[in-house]
Amino acid sequence: MNTDVLIIGGGPAGFACAKSAAHTYPEKKITIVRRDSVSVIPCGIPYVISSLEQVEHNILPDQGLVADDIEIVVDEVTGFDGKTAITASGKKISFEKLVLATGSRPTLPEIEGANLDGVMVIHKNFDFLSRMKEQVKNAENVFIVGGGFIGLEVADEILKLNKNVTICCRSRILRAAFDPEFCELAITEMENLGANVLSGTSIQKLEGSGSVSGVVLGDGTTVKSDLVIFGIGYDANVELAEKMGLELHNGLIKTDEYLRTSEDNVFAVGDCAIKREYFSRVPVSVMLASTAMAEGRLVGSNLYELNLIRGVKGTLGTFSTSFGKLSIGATGLTEVMAKKLGFNYIIGTAQAPDRHPGKIVDATMLKVKLLFSANSHTLLGAQVSGGKSVGEMINILSVMIQKGFTDTEIDTLQLGTHPLLTSSPIAYPIINATGNALIKSGWGRQREAAAMIKAMF
Amino acid sequence: MNTDVLIIGGGPAGFACAKSAAHTYPEKKITIVRRDSVSVIPCGIPYVISSLEQVEHNILPDQGLVADDIEIVVDEVTGFDGKTAITASGKKISFEKLVLATGSRPTLPEIEGANLDGVMVIHKNFDFLSRMKEQVKNAENVFIVGGGFIGLEVADEILKLNKNVTICCRSRILRAAFDPEFCELAITEMENLGANVLSGTSIQKLEGSGSVSGVVLGDGTTVKSDLVIFGIGYDANVELAEKMGLELHNGLIKTDEYLRTSEDNVFAVGDCAIKREYFSRVPVSVMLASTAMAEGRLVGSNLYELNLIRGVKGTLGTFSTSFGKLSIGATGLTEVMAKKLGFNYIIGTAQAPDRHPGKIVDATMLKVKLLFSANSHTLLGAQVSGGKSVGEMINILSVMIQKGFTDTEIDTLQLGTHPLLTSSPIAYPIINATGNALIKSGWGRQREAAAMIKAMF
Repeated sequence: MNTDVLIIGGGPAGFACAKSAAHTYPEKKITIVRRDSVSVIPCGIPYVISSLEQVEHNILPDQGLVADDIEIVVDEVTGFDGKTAITASGKKISFEKLVLATGSRPTLPEIEGANLDGVMVIHKNFDFLSRMKEQVKNAENVFIVGGGFIGLEVADEILKLNKNVTICCRSRILRAAFDPEFCELAITEMENLGANVLSGTSIQKLEGSGSVSGVVLGDGTTVKSDLVIFGIGYDANVELAEKMGLELHNGLIKTDEYLRTSEDNVFAVGDCAIKREYFSRVPVSVMLASTAMAEGRLVGSNLYELNLIRGVKGTLGTFSTSFGKLSIGATGLTEVMAKKLGFNYIIGTAQAPDRHPGKIVDATMLKVKLLFSANSHTLLGAQVSGGKSVGEMINILSVMIQKGFTDTEIDTLQLGTHPLLTSSPIAYPIINATGNALIKSGWGRQREAAAMIKAMF
Repeated sequence: MNTDVLIIGGGPAGFACAKSAAHTYPEKKITIVRRDSVSVIPCGIPYVISSLEQVEHNILPDQGLVADDIEIVVDEVTGFDGKTAITASGKKISFEKLVLATGSRPTLPEIEGANLDGVMVIHKNFDFLSRMKEQVKNAENVFIVGGGFIGLEVADEILKLNKNVTICCRSRILRAAFDPEFCELAITEMENLGANVLSGTSIQKLEGSGSVSGVVLGDGTTVKSDLVIFGIGYDANVELAEKMGLELHNGLIKTDEYLRTSEDNVFAVGDCAIKREYFSRVPVSVMLASTAMAEGRLVGSNLYELNLIRGVKGTLGTFSTSFGKLSIGATGLTEVMAKKLGFNYIIGTAQAPDRHPGKIVDATMLKVKLLFSANSHTLLGAQVSGGKSVGEMINILSVMIQKGFTDTEIDTLQLGTHPLLTSSPIAYPIINATGNALIKSGWGRQREAAAMIKAMF
């Protein structure tokens, strides 16, 4: 068969790319080849365990593709012959433009006992999720390895089924996205929900005959477990790229700012493509559906010429999650990252209830931490904790970073507030954390210095 | 007594101005003169009726001022003698810099029967609110005149007390902030909550002997009412400004971009100061605590020299409210306003649940309407309806307008999403409404035209 645009991979990046291409190039034929007959929503995966009644409720619907005349081929591309892709079933698909949206797969644990029954990694696959939902239902003592988003979200869901849950993390939970004081909030909330949180704890091996029965920790103690879930990261699927001889960097497909690979007419988007930290352009590991889709939209619009100029260079990781009564979000640099990358920064903090007055019944305390460049005064990063409005508040901050807001620009912003929806205008914590940073950056002192200089002449 | 900075008015504008001045000029003495011994939170006023147990829960606390050594004088400035203010109690306060933050008072109805017992306007005053809370409790049939934010919010609160409520509006409710399709959502929700909504309805007079007993509508029918609340707007308090001979415009104190009046060393902030529409600089009526506080912060930082450069020129009205299951927000131009002001615009719309997948239990449908300049491609305005996240979503859009985002810049943004907190990255309605506007602006067609031109040469 022939197509104009061939997209390999049916996850968020491929999906967004196909739709964007269909809108920009309505005369072109767009084809997606994907391995699974149905695609699942990656961020919704933890919630199939308890919050969603059926795994079917977490499907990425094909209607969105079908409506735009995008062809879906369920198959696996195994190699290429020039500008023709060859699939596992022997199909040959010739193309003009190729987009690799091959995604990632869960990192397998290299540990004794990893092949016992009841030990799993989390595949982004419908059949696996259906089995996982069953297995969790039948488990009693669940041991989760990994303190990232997926580990905590899976733990939260399993706790809702009244199982015993241990979360074990080699260093500290949510380390990649949050500074320690926000991680502490997450630990406290997880413990309130009933989890046993083991930070800074390694594991030696898994025990059991046939099925797993326990996890042996670094100090030799054993935690009784009949289900062990590893959430220790994902590895990019770059085998096809390697076969094509595309340049890689740190195990990811190297691209330019428009996601073009080292090969003409070949693009890479999503988890398989390199990500660069927003301010320093240092390669970073960010695997987010939201980032992947932004890349997909960009490539879909730019396949035949650069139509859509990239406003934002680099990747801005914007994360949020929610469990129990806590929601937390982060965007840009954490303080730990800023220090490591060598930034001279100033921190501003503030807190306020997310309703006003604070006696409004569903009010939750918001905490905001902002990082500004000490001399350029640019917003570098933000972390927010509080109630569910955190999900959109972190996007306000993400937008600010992507347009290069400075502290004084934020201080002069006009933002909307409402008693039942937001903090009070007096206490609005993004503004007040900025004010706090301004004071620390010598706002008052600068004036005094100016007066001194005036007095001297 | 002497002070360096004298602020007249203890509402949000005065409060924010005083704090900002104290932080910027720590060596200066700052004094607030205000009429009331306690200040109330203006946006919280409707909620003292039912959501807040006591009116005391809606006080703007003085601690924030006291902590910054700001002196509070409870008195009323009645005139000036040069750079000395004279108060009702005979105090003389000399100053270097004067800030008028005199606010606004409710517009009194000019109608027969307006002086009957049980007829009220809503004063921003503690004692009045305490009386109002009692009167509402004892009422049975409440008639609200005015379909603005305050009318609807007061109606919502009174409905929670199981009273009969009629809302009567001369044209359509929320006309100043929303286009008709969003007003319709508000009417439907108000009716679901049990209100009788009369749009496009005038009133002739109020009936009763001593106390009000009914409202006679334009068509002669009478609505039985033992409490009538007028929420028909607020008039700026500009008497002091007039006494000083300051220039006014449309009944508001005329200022420059830094809120400086026609008199040296005299500033005006908040409801009493002129507001100009963001894109056209046409004078507009926006009386919002959030706007007032942004102005207060700006003036407080700029009293002795311009420290804080105004990023945003003009006033950007950003509104939100919430009743029943509906939250709605608006920022910038509505379609009706854009048409009236002569803008050539393109509309983009999208809708999506505010959780993903949509089966997450607390998911609510979000609707987004965006206005872009047809040729400059700048975001001109936005309206959002949905659940409580609307309060912060409208701030994302407000920030975008204040930094001049265009449609293609929004299309390349990287925003964070989470199943329990936001729409899915595929469906995120701010992005998708932008995509919708891009398609309408000829995104695909432009490419075809470019190809045609290429083929011609």
